[in-house]
Amino acid sequence: MKQLVFGHKNPDTDAIVAAKAYSYLLNQLGADTEAVALGEPNDETKFVLDHFSEPYPRVIAKASDEVSQVVLVDHNEHQQSVADIEDVAVSHVIDHHRIANFSTASPLYYRAEPVGCCSTIIFKEFTEHEVEVPAKLAGLMLSAIISDTLLFKSPTTTDDDIAIGKKLAEIAGVSYEEYGLEMLKAGTNLATKTAEE
Amino acid sequence: MKQLVFGHKNPDTDAIVAAKAYSYLLNQLGADTEAVALGEPNDETKFVLDHFSEPYPRVIAKASDEVSQVVLVDHNEHQQSVADIEDVAVSHVIDHHRIANFSTASPLYYRAEPVGCCSTIIFKEFTEHEVEVPAKLAGLMLSAIISDTLLFKSPTTTDDDIAIGKKLAEIAGVSYEEYGLEMLKAGTNLATKTAEE
Ligand SMILES: [Mn+2]
Ligand SMILES: [Mn+2]
Ligand SMILES: [Mn+2]
Ligand SMILES: [Mn+2]
Repeated sequence: MKQLVFGHKNPDTDAIVAAKAYSYLLNQLGADTEAVALGEPNDETKFVLDHFSEPYPRVIAKASDEVSQVVLVDHNEHQQSVADIEDVAVSHVIDHHRIANFSTASPLYYRAEPVGCCSTIIFKEFTEHEVEVPAKLAGLMLSAIISDTLLFKSPTTTDDDIAIGKKLAEIAGVSYEEYGLEMLKAGTNLATKTAEE
Repeated sequence: MKQLVFGHKNPDTDAIVAAKAYSYLLNQLGADTEAVALGEPNDETKFVLDHFSEPYPRVIAKASDEVSQVVLVDHNEHQQSVADIEDVAVSHVIDHHRIANFSTASPLYYRAEPVGCCSTIIFKEFTEHEVEVPAKLAGLMLSAIISDTLLFKSPTTTDDDIAIGKKLAEIAGVSYEEYGLEMLKAGTNLATKTAEE
């Protein structure tokens, strides 16, 4: 039974990447899932996807016309989710936010940890299931961690984010500092702004 | 900072044992926690604790007069929790039920899996953290799995419950079938009932 995997509305890089990463992992473990998004990627995320030649995800407005089960990443609150979230069953949640306005009719798989980025938790699941992270996906997941932790400088950054970010940079074969600054710059769109202002 | 760990009101064997097991694990990992209960153990749980010479947990009616943070096992709904749950922060939840009437002000560690018993999930955490389960605690955790799954016969039983139950029986050095039937009989209090009726 096919499932859709998605992050929150007004997606940031983690919302888009965590969906791609978790969908990949679930499919490797035998599930049939598709990573989608609840909005177009922002400038930073476009830079990331273009950099690693990864297609933009399909944007959905409703889930229940396609599937009966969904997987939430990088959010849990119903207001931040798909419009018809009440009409589908949530089978998995992977998140790093507080829990609020969330409930289910049945038991589910829910994993939240107080870390800086959802993709950090997803990397742990790859390790636990002994599934290799492909180089391109490692680049995307590193980007999500850099985005959520502002290159390991936000107060929400944990040791796990740093250690896993560095591992992902190695797998992806990029210098996280150099790439990270370029990526964050693409997000703030400094070049354009300077020209405009 | 000390934390209290407890299961739901009207505790069953899993609610009492999961609190003891998770408190033990957290303390091994450096935390300062105490397993308590929201009610007296029932007949089945008394049999289990007596069998493994384990003390009955202290029963609390309030948490906020002792601690500012708590850990919930085998439940998440506020109605099933301590009376003043709204006055403390929940730092961890380990559960195997649906999520409802639960919310937090901050990010937390939340792990739910759709398995038959909370103690099954806690055993996985012991393994992941490479912490050994002492023989006596293994006996208690096996009892919780037998109780929640009715000796692997309830429809909620999963392969994980069976595999982990068998491992725990080995560590505890008991025959799970023989011990399990004795334990379930103690819970239904067949001997007394037959005499009374
Ligand atoms: Mn996000
Ligand atoms: Mn995030
Ligand atoms: Mn219970
Ligand atoms: Mn239980």
